[in-house]
Amino acid sequence: DRTYRIAVIPGDGIGTEVMPEGVRALHAAADVYGFELDLIELDWASAEHWKAHGTMMPEDWAEQLEAVDAIFFGAVGWPDVVPDHVSLWGSILQFRRVFDQYVNLRPVKLLKGVRSPLAGREPGEVDFYVVRENTEGEYSSVGGRMFEGTERETVIQETIMTRTGIDRVLRYAFDLAERRPAKKVTSATKSNGIAITMPYWDERVAAMSESYPDIDVDQFHIDILAANFVLHPDWFDVVVASNLFGDILSDLGPACVGTIGIAPSANINPEGTHPSLFEPVHGSAPDIAGQGIANPIGQIWSAALMLDHLGEAEAAAAIEEAFEAVVAAGDTRIVTPDLGGAGTTAGLGRAIADAI
Amino acid sequence: DRTYRIAVIPGDGIGTEVMPEGVRALHAAADVYGFELDLIELDWASAEHWKAHGTMMPEDWAEQLEAVDAIFFGAVGWPDVVPDHVSLWGSILQFRRVFDQYVNLRPVKLLKGVRSPLAGREPGEVDFYVVRENTEGEYSSVGGRMFEGTERETVIQETIMTRTGIDRVLRYAFDLAERRPAKKVTSATKSNGIAITMPYWDERVAAMSESYPDIDVDQFHIDILAANFVLHPDWFDVVVASNLFGDILSDLGPACVGTIGIAPSANINPEGTHPSLFEPVHGSAPDIAGQGIANPIGQIWSAALMLDHLGEAEAAAAIEEAFEAVVAAGDTRIVTPDLGGAGTTAGLGRAIADAI
Ligand SMILES: CC(C)[C@H](C(=O)O)[C@@H](O)C(=O)O
Ligand SMILES: CC(C)[C@H](C(=O)O)[C@@H](O)C(=O)O
Repeated sequence: DRTYRIAVIPGDGIGTEVMPEGVRALHAAADVYGFELDLIELDWASAEHWKAHGTMMPEDWAEQLEAVDAIFFGAVGWPDVVPDHVSLWGSILQFRRVFDQYVNLRPVKLLKGVRSPLAGREPGEVDFYVVRENTEGEYSSVGGRMFEGTERETVIQETIMTRTGIDRVLRYAFDLAERRPAKKVTSATKSNGIAITMPYWDERVAAMSESYPDIDVDQFHIDILAANFVLHPDWFDVVVASNLFGDILSDLGPACVGTIGIAPSANINPEGTHPSLFEPVHGSAPDIAGQGIANPIGQIWSAALMLDHLGEAEAAAAIEEAFEAVVAAGDTRIVTPDLGGAGTTAGLGRAIADAI
Repeated sequence: DRTYRIAVIPGDGIGTEVMPEGVRALHAAADVYGFELDLIELDWASAEHWKAHGTMMPEDWAEQLEAVDAIFFGAVGWPDVVPDHVSLWGSILQFRRVFDQYVNLRPVKLLKGVRSPLAGREPGEVDFYVVRENTEGEYSSVGGRMFEGTERETVIQETIMTRTGIDRVLRYAFDLAERRPAKKVTSATKSNGIAITMPYWDERVAAMSESYPDIDVDQFHIDILAANFVLHPDWFDVVVASNLFGDILSDLGPACVGTIGIAPSANINPEGTHPSLFEPVHGSAPDIAGQGIANPIGQIWSAALMLDHLGEAEAAAAIEEAFEAVVAAGDTRIVTPDLGGAGTTAGLGRAIADAI
């Protein structure tokens, strides 16, 4: 059966503007490749819902979402209405944990027609993945505050990593590297300064690499690794990182190749026990929201990752080819301001749908 | 009295190669500006010492160093002999804490003659400081391991931040910004994901900014901040960050402006209760050690920061002008391979000393 039940959650800000274009691309691909879409539009996980109900989501959110094949997500966060840590811990960070989407997969790719801020890099030279642990580690709300309101005030927060949690994301990264020509995994660490969790991370990387003798493994401390994303982006193939380090690297990588506004992300539960979630890397962008100029490619590229995950590899490839071709053509009436054009969200979305 | 008692600790690897050039620059400046140097060369805080004694430093290290006006440090770490977290927690990370060097000041400056990996940036366009908290936060050895050796193995590590610790480094950053034309402080945060310590950091930034009404304050989450170092390095003036975030940003910033091998760093105890320490940002670089090709400018620039700290502002400026002029001249027989030349550590060091 090729009918996919998909929860569509636009969220806040430009999330609501780029989502229709993501959906347009999905419909175009469905028409051409002959599958069916059963889209369930949900208006929660938004500041609107917070305003109306004082919560980010209805009580039965998990049940509603467990029933779908995948979640197509926009962006959440509107700090004027609800503080970011509340809106995010009340939505996307919940999804990742409750649905055990322990892999966050983020491609970094230098595309033709996108101007990279790095001098002298050519399309094809940079093409790697950041595989980010997505459920534990530095993202924690365990800890507390002592001597509150006094000069001695102290806050403590725990980073918690487990063998299960580390090993499964490492395995995903090594398996991914096996399917790539370079067969190389780079581990992000900081075991020289972060004295308990990161040496443990290194141990697990060393243990895992024993099971993959044909994979070339190296590691860098996060400080010099970030520097090397700028200096030598061509060195990388599969970069595996903890939750925080993966967060940093998966914004930095796209920034280096000029795709910060268009990078996609897949929050994957590899076992398929729970639905996976697909969203652009960018946030709700209050600064440009409401103008209709947000680049919809992050959302559209995420649609491609979602279709690939659902088994529609051809349709996924067609979407990627479509936006790559439109970007490479570089018609300034069509591409959005971030790509040097004067186009609109809808205009660019339509051009891509037509190309599919 | 203008006699400065300085502990000289070369450390490991290229630390031992660049230190003589740092010392050469100090002597040259002393000759011209008429102050005296009392240099105390120490061979500990090195893998050699570890091999001979099983410790990184002698027992009375703190007493020896308390007696000096400043510490001039090379680089430590030789993983073949002693694991990095052992050598670093046994030396530089100790110094920072025991001597309460709570400010780590790291300039990011696009220099004439240094090729930046970023396209189209000109010298003068990028010139800012990273002010890094240097004693607490994410760099902690508090925590532990549970269910050791089993599938349930779990590691926990605490990040600990205090009001005292945050406020004093913020104050330093705001005071520094007051003395700069742009009068701007950018705070690195991640309060949307790191739910206890970082919202507290934001609170303290907000509180501190009330005392500095003329300073323009903004903040970015570390993921997008790292991206903006690549995309908009000209936005920044004084960037203030926690220990880990400051570590990442102060490698990334120099990488963006092409000075990763030459960036300096000042570990400052602003009250002068304990000696401050000056060291290049780079490490011991086992990969190029022993070849005599390491760039000595990180060490020499650190000498300038040290003299400035000791009250010899003119001499400090002269050193900076000297290496800037030598780099701008760009004689390929003199500058080291990282700058596109074929020069040696000693050759470049001598050229800079001559220019002073
Ligand atoms: C060597 C390491 C512990 C150190 C740090 O992370 O502080 C270094 O990277 C630095 O920036 O001085
Ligand atoms: C919004 C924020 C909590 C989130 C994260 O840090 O994971 C975002 O930056 C991301 O990368 O998906």
